[in-house]
Amino acid sequence: MNITTVFSPALYPYCKRSEQYICVVVDILRATTTMCTAVEFGAELIPVSSVEEAREYKRKGFLVAGERIERTLDFADFGNSALLFRTDEIKGKTIVHTTTNGTRAIALAQDYKPKQTVIGAFSNINALKDFLVKAGCDVEILLSGWQNTFCLEDTLFAGALSTMLFNEGFTSKDDSTFAAVDLWNAAKEDILQYLEKASHIHRLRKAHFDDVFQYTFTLNTCRCVPVLRNGKIIKA
Amino acid sequence: MNITTVFSPALYPYCKRSEQYICVVVDILRATTTMCTAVEFGAELIPVSSVEEAREYKRKGFLVAGERIERTLDFADFGNSALLFRTDEIKGKTIVHTTTNGTRAIALAQDYKPKQTVIGAFSNINALKDFLVKAGCDVEILLSGWQNTFCLEDTLFAGALSTMLFNEGFTSKDDSTFAAVDLWNAAKEDILQYLEKASHIHRLRKAHFDDVFQYTFTLNTCRCVPVLRNGKIIKA
Repeated sequence: MNITTVFSPALYPYCKRSEQYICVVVDILRATTTMCTAVEFGAELIPVSSVEEAREYKRKGFLVAGERIERTLDFADFGNSALLFRTDEIKGKTIVHTTTNGTRAIALAQDYKPKQTVIGAFSNINALKDFLVKAGCDVEILLSGWQNTFCLEDTLFAGALSTMLFNEGFTSKDDSTFAAVDLWNAAKEDILQYLEKASHIHRLRKAHFDDVFQYTFTLNTCRCVPVLRNGKIIKA
Repeated sequence: MNITTVFSPALYPYCKRSEQYICVVVDILRATTTMCTAVEFGAELIPVSSVEEAREYKRKGFLVAGERIERTLDFADFGNSALLFRTDEIKGKTIVHTTTNGTRAIALAQDYKPKQTVIGAFSNINALKDFLVKAGCDVEILLSGWQNTFCLEDTLFAGALSTMLFNEGFTSKDDSTFAAVDLWNAAKEDILQYLEKASHIHRLRKAHFDDVFQYTFTLNTCRCVPVLRNGKIIKA
């Protein structure tokens, strides 16, 4: 089983693709961390790429969560912080979700017809590792980045997950995966301290969205693996 | 003075660009290492993106150096190994140069109108650092990668150069630059040992082009800074 890491949606067309693979979509700050929490607390999500689609769903009576560039959409019921979804009130609810980077990466991944698309975050990393080991096929880790640029927090996650998968017999021939592992090794003793240099940390702090950092970088607060099925993100 | 690193030509349209900057083009294995050597030994180069352009120059009587995917072009006078250019026989000659990744990155860089385009390799890193410090403006380090994917050897160079520039008062807000510096720190004690995991090392070894590795990763064998001027790469 082979691991490939893709640092940005803009690089996705160029990655060497297996016949059959599971795509792990990652947007640590904040979309995929939020998705794991929402699914853990019993919601299902409809990820959409555009604000217009989200607005259309809202008109039809759906709950909507979403943001663009650190601003909650004015018509949304929820923002894009995982902390908002740690409530049993969302149990059994369907929530439409759109974000700057993460939900677009999910849509992009579908263009290449993965066997499955799953959602990864530090909060569900152990459950995700178990899921991927059990599936036993190649893995592509697609990082959402920030508006198509490389970002550190997604890369650290790819390094952490790859390290766990290497320990389970996975391999890689991919420079991005090896780089992610080495960056994870540099960061793992104190992730938040390491990420002080990350640009998106500063962007979110400026927008007063830094309350989610501690939760985001705590491993294994969720036991679920969200998967995309028929356009919805549900518990595997 | 600010440093931005771009891991692949495919990411170049998305990088946050300064008003005025010098673009450092990097393709360590092998184009920019070869360029530094050729210019050091007194040649000037005409970098071209396509095999067709190179063939047209050949028809007009120019010397041509070039390869595509580890194969020397059948009509070329030189391949793409720096070792071929360590000879006084090239002094004063003009050589047309085309490669899989590096010469295309040079062409791409021109679309964004940098103040200057210069050529970087481990072989001229100290001279390049001095040149950039003296110029005193923002720096973009454009890595050629491998067919638009991320590659380790170019990234290590970006990390090494950024470390030297940080010591001279340059700054960065760029996740890619910080990642490159941390990877350089992981690799610098034994670059070749570190790069055993790099995919392009294996690709070149398979093509029996590994004789150039030792030279490529030896720092400061050249004192020149090749710059692009009127379509030619010449000594600054």
